Amino acid sequence: MTNTQVTLLQIDNYGPWTVTPEPRREADLQTLQSRLYADVSQFVGNRDGYVFFTRFDNMIAVTNGLSREDHALLQESIGNRYPVTVSLGVATGTTPVQALSDATALIQEAGSAQDKNRRECLEGRTIDDAHRTGEDVQIAHFDVIDATGEYTDELNAFDTFIEIEQGYASLMRHMRRAHESLAFFVGGDNVIVVCPDLDEAQYEEAIYHVQEDVDVELQVGAGRGRSAHEAGIAAKHALEDCRADGTRIELGW
Amino acid sequence: MTNTQVTLLQIDNYGPWTVTPEPRREADLQTLQSRLYADVSQFVGNRDGYVFFTRFDNMIAVTNGLSREDHALLQESIGNRYPVTVSLGVATGTTPVQALSDATALIQEAGSAQDKNRRECLEGRTIDDAHRTGEDVQIAHFDVIDATGEYTDELNAFDTFIEIEQGYASLMRHMRRAHESLAFFVGGDNVIVVCPDLDEAQYEEAIYHVQEDVDVELQVGAGRGRSAHEAGIAAKHALEDCRADGTRIELGW
Amino acid sequence: MTNTQVTLLQIDNYGPWTVTPEPRREADLQTLQSRLYADVSQFVGNRDGYVFFTRFDNMIAVTNGLSREDHALLQESIGNRYPVTVSLGVATGTTPVQALSDATALIQEAGSAQDKNRRECLEGRTIDDAHRTGEDVQIAHFDVIDATGEYTDELNAFDTFIEIEQGYASLMRHMRRAHESLAFFVGGDNVIVVCPDLDEAQYEEAIYHVQEDVDVELQVGAGRGRSAHEAGIAAKHALEDCRADGTRIELGW
Amino acid sequence: MTNTQVTLLQIDNYGPWTVTPEPRREADLQTLQSRLYADVSQFVGNRDGYVFFTRFDNMIAVTNGLSREDHALLQESIGNRYPVTVSLGVATGTTPVQALSDATALIQEAGSAQDKNRRECLEGRTIDDAHRTGEDVQIAHFDVIDATGEYTDELNAFDTFIEIEQGYASLMRHMRRAHESLAFFVGGDNVIVVCPDLDEAQYEEAIYHVQEDVDVELQVGAGRGRSAHEAGIAAKHALEDCRADGTRIELGW
Repeated sequence: MTNTQVTLLQIDNYGPWTVTPEPRREADLQTLQSRLYADVSQFVGNRDGYVFFTRFDNMIAVTNGLSREDHALLQESIGNRYPVTVSLGVATGTTPVQALSDATALIQEAGSAQDKNRRECLEGRTIDDAHRTGEDVQIAHFDVIDATGEYTDELNAFDTFIEIEQGYASLMRHMRRAHESLAFFVGGDNVIVVCPDLDEAQYEEAIYHVQEDVDVELQVGAGRGRSAHEAGIAAKHALEDCRADGTRIELGW
Repeated sequence: MTNTQVTLLQIDNYGPWTVTPEPRREADLQTLQSRLYADVSQFVGNRDGYVFFTRFDNMIAVTNGLSREDHALLQESIGNRYPVTVSLGVATGTTPVQALSDATALIQEAGSAQDKNRRECLEGRTIDDAHRTGEDVQIAHFDVIDATGEYTDELNAFDTFIEIEQGYASLMRHMRRAHESLAFFVGGDNVIVVCPDLDEAQYEEAIYHVQEDVDVELQVGAGRGRSAHEAGIAAKHALEDCRADGTRIELGW
Repeated sequence: MTNTQVTLLQIDNYGPWTVTPEPRREADLQTLQSRLYADVSQFVGNRDGYVFFTRFDNMIAVTNGLSREDHALLQESIGNRYPVTVSLGVATGTTPVQALSDATALIQEAGSAQDKNRRECLEGRTIDDAHRTGEDVQIAHFDVIDATGEYTDELNAFDTFIEIEQGYASLMRHMRRAHESLAFFVGGDNVIVVCPDLDEAQYEEAIYHVQEDVDVELQVGAGRGRSAHEAGIAAKHALEDCRADGTRIELGW
Repeated sequence: MTNTQVTLLQIDNYGPWTVTPEPRREADLQTLQSRLYADVSQFVGNRDGYVFFTRFDNMIAVTNGLSREDHALLQESIGNRYPVTVSLGVATGTTPVQALSDATALIQEAGSAQDKNRRECLEGRTIDDAHRTGEDVQIAHFDVIDATGEYTDELNAFDTFIEIEQGYASLMRHMRRAHESLAFFVGGDNVIVVCPDLDEAQYEEAIYHVQEDVDVELQVGAGRGRSAHEAGIAAKHALEDCRADGTRIELGW
């Protein structure tokens, strides 16, 4: 049974900062946001977690393997190197959405995202190493079947992008409502989903839902592990099996 | 009348590279993609252009002000510092979608995105400085009215994200089909749209379309300029007027 | 008694890479080198180690607290994100110079720095967590007394730089020969030295040696710890005592 | 005749910032310094200039080709993305040292490096495009003959570093006093020197001075150009001739 540890990272008072004293150059905001995300990806990823850029001022991470001290260090390091600070909420749950809801509530209780007095909150609990198992995290890695042949080499780059976005928007809604899962577009034609215990039938349902809804054909590899990296790399290998064998769904366990 | 110069940047043979010889750590791919985007944002942004991360392996930029030599230098610098290379297609058009279509075609004609022999193509034409005007670029900057109060401080972070994504997906389809415009989510609750000559009625139509379609309330500031930065900073200031005055649409000209 | 774990990181075949097929833009090489160093600094620093840029293609780190698996992960992550790869040698010794010599020999035995077949070697042994103590690392943090008043606000920036460099060159030679220590310039007017067990008399000797040799006045704070960070932060606090009290030497134990 | 445009970049109030409210983690300071330098290297380098890390809180650049507006943009972009700000002084001179002295004085007159009220000064004059020539900049690129064979593959990495440092310290003093030139270690075994009009005899004198002083054998390639990049890439090619032909000095004109 999954036991997902989810961390919400929220930049403190970011909206006001971007327009004070004047609106800042957009290219600089994009650079700041992307590099902050890249740094969090290295920190969390080097401890076998995954973080998703989400809205950039709010990032969602699967942090099984990171302790409270790790979270404090990440927060301190960002505060030393960026013109902004971040607040962190960590929680675990029977489903990823449950954990994420609790993590969000921890930060909301500390103060508004635009409360200029709320700075560098760190709330929540991490899973003791002794209580971790190889089934704590389930990751599903979806991609669009032959995106290059069907879209990238055929349509203009924005129309290709629209197709991928529509596929993602459909999958994200379905996985959240039907399966309490968190789905994130990660570039190219790839979507990574953080799931509770799902089986082949439920992945099949998801694929056909998206095909019916927006006419985008997906395939999926899924994996389990002690950490997001362990589950995710198993999912990537399973997806390679889909590509090699022409199957729509492959489970790495 | 607008004369948008659009550049499509596409990483060469990226899909195969990410899984050769084995699938690579996801956190490292995210770091690479984000930092590549950040570098392109600095290079293009420092010449008053805008670039949008789009799908990360394919990025769309508004490059009025960048010459062909600038494009060649960007390509060379990336080749010197990353384990991947990029191909670039540049075109101008009566509408942003038209320019982007032509830019895409230039790269597609040079070879598939997964053609291992296609490396560092540079095709297309830039606008002569002598032919540039203060109306070449029109940028519209949309955001969700009181996103912090309505969503961020109220819902869990993923449900807030779903609302923002649905609003974006609806706006992006509408602006592309009805107005040959390119819309990009840029973080937080912000969407930047690259437009041809649109007027207040057309922005009003867009806002009410999204409200009817997915029940997300947007406001918008628009600006014009010689470059994306010039148009975009005018749009940001116009959006500040919306926030200050409680209006839904403000034009910076 | 100190037990310093030292890692030598050496970029594989870097010299030839920088000029193949043609010499590469210097600004790009500088960017690559600095960002690679910054990434290693984050990775090592987040595990409470210190890494010094040294010659950029060869970096020396104090890695008490990093396991062999940590070293392998660092190497893999760099290989995923840079156009170069690195080899690593790790050793421990009764003195920092002894450990660094052994670490160097491990890499030299694997192959030349310009051997195009030597890639991503990882050799050596790390200290078991069970055998670590709070006296494993001794760090001394030197700076120039009132560098701002004496030099920065008075001389041209290059003449100030020459003074700092001469001070550093003198200290580095003395500390290596007299005390088997490794001294590194870390920016501003600061030099961080990795030492074996030294006492106040030996630090006094070092300060007066440099004053006699090149007429540069130094002060120093020293600290001990389980890791470079622990020893180093104690040294920084001791140096603050020098600044507050006007003393030349302060020991943090 | 050379006409070097030199810019001094100085971080505002950096010393105090690094210890307020408490001393900050050294690894984070190193990361910040290196990434700031890398960004300046990209900005300046993309306009065909060169910047040298120097002391990191003070960086020296050759900025022929950068206008005052370029300097203002660099300053603004840094202010948007870092927790520190920078002051800039620009000057030109008959020799590099003269230009650097004037650039330093401009900043010193604006206020102390640790004056908490001095922020983002921008002083000085750049060369009009109309007045630039192909002889404005002279760059000499020195390296140690067969450093890999003599040092890197033979000595421990710190003793190799000491040899390179001693060679650099000797060359830097000589070039500054005898030839009003600015010499910078750029990694590996390479030193780049910004010179006025020097001829073969003067380079020969420099090489033999260093050999006599510290027993380090150098070779050098020199180049001229409109910009640091143009002169520098010619110098790199000349240095390749030294390597290919076994000569000690090659001039690219």
